[in-house]
Formats: sequence, C-alpha cells, structure tokens
Amino acid sequence: MATELARLGVRARAAVKSISTSSSAARDQALLAAADLLVAGSATLLRANRADLDRARANDLGAAALDRLALDEGRIESMAAGLRGVATLADPVGEVVDGWVRPNGLRVQRVRVPLGVVGIIYENRPNVTSDAAGLCLKSGNVAFLRGSSSALESNRAVVAILREALVKAGLAADGVLLVEDTSHETALEFMRLRGVIDCLIPRAGRQLIELLLEHGTVPYVLDGDGNCHVYVDRSADLEMATDIVLNAKTQRPGVCNAAETLLVHRDVARRFLPAVARALDGVELRGDPEVCAILPGTTPATDDDFATEFLGPCLSVAVVDDIAAAIAHIDRYGSGHSEAIVTGDVGAADTFVREVDAAAVLVNASTRFVDGGELGLGAEVGISTQKLHARGPMGVRELTCTKWVVRGEGQVRQ
Amino acid sequence: MATELARLGVRARAAVKSISTSSSAARDQALLAAADLLVAGSATLLRANRADLDRARANDLGAAALDRLALDEGRIESMAAGLRGVATLADPVGEVVDGWVRPNGLRVQRVRVPLGVVGIIYENRPNVTSDAAGLCLKSGNVAFLRGSSSALESNRAVVAILREALVKAGLAADGVLLVEDTSHETALEFMRLRGVIDCLIPRAGRQLIELLLEHGTVPYVLDGDGNCHVYVDRSADLEMATDIVLNAKTQRPGVCNAAETLLVHRDVARRFLPAVARALDGVELRGDPEVCAILPGTTPATDDDFATEFLGPCLSVAVVDDIAAAIAHIDRYGSGHSEAIVTGDVGAADTFVREVDAAAVLVNASTRFVDGGELGLGAEVGISTQKLHARGPMGVRELTCTKWVVRGEGQVRQ
Repeated sequence: MATELARLGVRARAAVKSISTSSSAARDQALLAAADLLVAGSATLLRANRADLDRARANDLGAAALDRLALDEGRIESMAAGLRGVATLADPVGEVVDGWVRPNGLRVQRVRVPLGVVGIIYENRPNVTSDAAGLCLKSGNVAFLRGSSSALESNRAVVAILREALVKAGLAADGVLLVEDTSHETALEFMRLRGVIDCLIPRAGRQLIELLLEHGTVPYVLDGDGNCHVYVDRSADLEMATDIVLNAKTQRPGVCNAAETLLVHRDVARRFLPAVARALDGVELRGDPEVCAILPGTTPATDDDFATEFLGPCLSVAVVDDIAAAIAHIDRYGSGHSEAIVTGDVGAADTFVREVDAAAVLVNASTRFVDGGELGLGAEVGISTQKLHARGPMGVRELTCTKWVVRGEGQVRQ
Repeated sequence: MATELARLGVRARAAVKSISTSSSAARDQALLAAADLLVAGSATLLRANRADLDRARANDLGAAALDRLALDEGRIESMAAGLRGVATLADPVGEVVDGWVRPNGLRVQRVRVPLGVVGIIYENRPNVTSDAAGLCLKSGNVAFLRGSSSALESNRAVVAILREALVKAGLAADGVLLVEDTSHETALEFMRLRGVIDCLIPRAGRQLIELLLEHGTVPYVLDGDGNCHVYVDRSADLEMATDIVLNAKTQRPGVCNAAETLLVHRDVARRFLPAVARALDGVELRGDPEVCAILPGTTPATDDDFATEFLGPCLSVAVVDDIAAAIAHIDRYGSGHSEAIVTGDVGAADTFVREVDAAAVLVNASTRFVDGGELGLGAEVGISTQKLHARGPMGVRELTCTKWVVRGEGQVRQ
C-alpha cells in the first residue's frame, strides 16, 4: 500500500507537465495572484500562525526560534513583495544556452528547461514556504515542500493560498504540495523518492545532511556551512581591512557568509591587530600564540576554534607568514563557502583568486555580499557549497537544467 | 590505520594544486607527450595487454569482453590520436561564464575552474584509461582511476606512461592515479571518499550504480541506460523515417544511443510498418497487437519488452493514436536519454521538443548522433542521464565547475 507521501509524489509528477510547459505569463500571473492573496488573507494566515506559536510556546521553543516562526502584517507584506520581485525576474526557461551547426547540417542547441519536481526540506520560517515555492514556480518546477512541524499550520495556510493562485492562473494546483507528516521516517522516505524528486534542496541542520548523504537516493544540492575567512595582506589598506572585518563579522553574525576567522600577515600584525580589536568591541577573540602576544588577555585559540562556524560574536585570529600560509590555512579549515582577501597588491589578489578553492572569493569586499540578492540574482533559493550543478548563491537559473535539441533533415550516422 | 586507497586519496588531493593551477600549455604538452610515449612504448603496452588477455582467457571471459580488452598497434595509435585531439580542444579553465557590475561598484564574475579530483570507475577497455585521464587533465583535474581487474596490467602500463608525460611537462605525476585493488570492498570505499573525490563518474553496470545510490557519499554524475525511441509521425517522410530507424537500431546496436522502440502513428502504420520491417532485415520485431495484425508472425511485445534496453538486434514496436500518445509512451518507458521524432509538421516537432523530458530530443535525425564527438564537443567522458550538473554528452566543460569572483574597493554590506 502506497504511503501518504508516495501518493503526494504521484500528484507532484502528474503536475509536472502543467507547470513545466506553462507560459512565462501564466507563471508570473500566479506569482502576482499569490502575492495579492497573501495580503488579502493575512487575517487567516495570522490565525494559523498564532496556533503554531501557541503550540511552540507550550513546547518551550527558544526565543530565536519563536521569532523565526512568527508572522505579522509586515512579514506577510515582505512575503508578497518577494513573490512580486520573483515575478519581475527574467524567465530562465527556454533560454538557448548555446548552439551551433555541425558539418553535416545538424543544428544543435542546448536549451534551458525546468528540473521537474524540486523538493525542499526546511525549518520553521513560514516565509520560506512562499519564497521557495515562488522560485520553483518561476523556473517552471513543481515545489514539493517539507517544512517543520512547528510551522505546520502556517505552512498549510500559505500553501492553500499558493495553490489557489495557481488555479487562478490556469495551472495545476499540485504545482505546490506540502508534506504534512513531519516525522523523521517521512523525511527519510522523502529523500529516497528517486524518480519523483528531480532535485532536493535541504535547508536544514547537519543531522539531516548526514542522513541525506548516508541514505538519500535523490539528486540533491547541499546548502552547507560557511567557515569563512578574511585575510589581511601586508599591502592592505588597514582602515579598509578594519571596515571589512567588522562588517563580515558583525553585520549579521548568525548567517553562513559571516566571517569566522581573521588571518593577518605578520608584517602588519602589530599595527592592525590592536586597531581591529578595538573596532570589534563586544566580539570575543580567540588568538594563536602570536595574536595573544600582541593582544595580551586574548583567549588562546584551539585547533577546534579554527574549524568552528561560531555563528555568533566570536572570531578566531591567526598571524600568518605570507599569502601562501594564509591559503594553506584556508585549505585546511575552510568549508569552501566565501573567502576574502584585503590587499593593495594585484599579484596577491590574483594568487588568492586563483588558488583558494571556494564557492566565492572576494577581493577588498565583505564576505557578507555572497548572497543571491547582493550579487544580482534577484533572489536565492540557497547557497550551494558543493561543486556539481550549482556553486554559491542559487537563483532561478540554478533550478533548471538543459536539454539538447538536435534538428536535421534526415541525417543518419555514418 | 589508513588503507591503501585512503593513502592514494591523500596523494590525489596533494596533486590538485599542481594540476588545477597549471597553465593550459603545460597540460597540452603533457597530453602530447603522453601520445608520443604511448606509441613509442607500444611493445611494453602490448606485452602487458597480452598478460591480461591470457588471464582473461584462463578465466573464460567471453569473446566480446576479450575484444574490448585487446590492444593492437592500431588501437594504441587511436589512443594517442585521442589524446592529441583533446590537446587541440579549447581550455575550459578560466572561461568567464558571465559577469556584471553591481550598483555599489562590486565587479562580479563567474569563472570556470577545475573540479579537483575526478574519480572514474570503468570496465575492461584499456583505452578508457587514456581517454578519461586525458579529458581530466585537459580540464585541470586529477584523474583518480579505478579500472577492472581484467585490464589491470594494461592499465598499469598506460598509467605509467601518463605519469611520465606529466613529469615531462613539469606537473605532478600524481595527476593520474590508478587504484590497483579492484575488490568490491575497495569500490565501496572509493565511492565513500567524500572530501577526496569531487566528482565520481561510474562508467559501469547497473549493479555498481545501485551500490553508489545506496552507499555512495561522494558527488557523482550518472552515465545511465538509454531506452531510446523513434516516433514516426503521420506527416513523416516515410523513406527518411526508414533510414533513421534503420540507422538508430542497427548502425551500432550495443550502445546507449541506439533505438530500442519504434512508435508509429496509426495513420501511416499500414504503409510504414511493412517497409521498415523489410529494411530491418535480421532485427527481431516485438509488436503490440496492432503491429502483429499488420505484420503477421511478429512476436507479441510484453510490457517488459517496452521497458528493455535490448542492446542488440531486437526492436519493440507500437502503433499510437497521435503524438500525445507517443509522448505518453516515452514518459512511461523512456530512460531520459535520447528521443527522436520523424515528422514534416512543424507543430508536431515543436510539441515533441517541448514535452519530451530527455537529455536529448532529435527532429528528423538518428538517435545515434547523441554523442560528444558527433554533437561537437570534441570528445566525451560519458553521457549523463541525470539532470543536475550535466545532461547528455559530457565534454571537458562538464568536468569543471564555477567560482564566483567578486572584486571591490572596500565595499561593506549595509
């Protein structure tokens, strides 16, 4: 007997043709209708959200988690604005990526097409429901969503609105589907729906990623950790370096593109470290022996500190002999997310850009810019830390694949 | 204690910087040197190959497998020519895929970079050793090869030559590494070398793919089966259709882009089927009831026949009511490899191209063209039947990923 999830999977596949072959206009119409319906239905949404919040408080959810879960009129307006923004993006579907004519006259093109069914596992922010579904719809994909139990009522209400908008635009309601069973067993079953899910994006904790690596069979794109570094070269403008370190560490410390380690060239360490320590007031520094010698009273850093994504007001700091040592440190401890150099030396900049193996390398700019919106993708569905398919911020284009289209006049192979 | 394979993995990672940051000229020099050394060392190669062949015969390997395993002067020349051909391809590394300037002045680029370590598991054709290693090297990757036990001596000899060529070009010898332990346990360990292998391409049977899906943790690109269809539309030029079906089925039946099923529009079935059956002399047809009525004596096709990649002189045949029924049949039985329509109707061609979900769709051309060389990629490392990362024939570009490069003058995020 098919499980409830398997039945949902059949519905998702059945909706693929309606969504993937729909016109750009119909998909945009659905996005705009969903935005209007979210605002118009805010009373219903807030009621559902209140039920989730009451349950969450009864379950002693922490303050940060409660904040992420909570909706208000402003947040609903933001969700609607997000959908309207996605509607204004260029449609990635149908783009001819490249093409040529073969000597035998065959006309060859690679054309961008939707993936089909995109599965997303996420945690308790209800706005992810509309954000993710909007990006899937824009790119011609069915959104198969599995949110957290804490946000179930809110997610149901958002999904009901999205489905209503799809129908208004003449598209299959099943273009957006919510998995309401949030058990661990169902998460496992979800990541084994090979043939149903064309791409799974887990926006969730490390435990779920481990489960996916060990037991998942569907294709996936990992949105991993960011242990990001800022390297201050000997030739750096030290004021610029202070601004960048301060921004990278403190502008929003709880996110993956925040800096976790500062590396300083030996030649400027005595001048730079006291200045940056003053600027980083309120941030705990954990230093290697040389840092501790220059900044007495600094907590000594352990090897673990350099490997840790603090996601809070803590920064590990090391002095390095040269750019090669900085790159070697990043090779060893980095997670391949975002790595920055501050330098005035064009050779150092080029070496860093060439040799650091990460989704994004930045020269004289804050790591905080590694974000789909900031880099110009309009919106992002996540930041990939893997190399295959997509790397770094993923926009609507990363929710597509290509299809070879070959046209001839009867050619056969010799 | 680290296993032998884990030690090889450490060596592969250690070679990444040498290969990935090498100049295009050095990599091409190594490819050309390897070509020369293969020809110059053919006596040694043939001696090693003879040892493999003797062992294979003692193990009662079949004639087809023996043929795949066997080298001769001509095949060695072909291997060398392959490497020379790869050397002439454009270097994918360093290509600026796209780029723009943000309103705040940040200059953003996405630049093509090597993956790092590419793992390839393959069967007993020793030419794959040089072909695959050549494509990895061209694209700046370390080739981590795991061939079959039957070809071990041949592969050792080829790899020794490739390593010598690397050193001649000033590159790390460990840019090509061969796993000599060909046990099942080592295959399993290989596909779990997460952090060592950046991309695994299994060019092997279904059993190994199943093992990879269930137990693998490294990123991979699947080179899957091809259950390919030719659909002959009511508006088709029936002579062209006969030529295409004949070519797609018989030009080389044992490969993944050969046709396995013929679908014929009802309106032309009575005219077309007898003609194509005559042309397909020596091919066993398995037909649905309508085909059997038109071609008395045809073996009735089972549901399994339509799902089977025969890889031999057998073709399942069905009559369909219209193009929608043809697409529905392909949706149900196709493996997403290569699907062709023969038609004179532009609307039917467009519908087929838009609605058929496959790596390649062809209009009025044989499915046999879905191949890296035929489509203009110069050479191929495989044909991906997955949607993520690469779809269809994979050339050197598909052995790369991108890196975001962001350059500023001290910008911080507001």
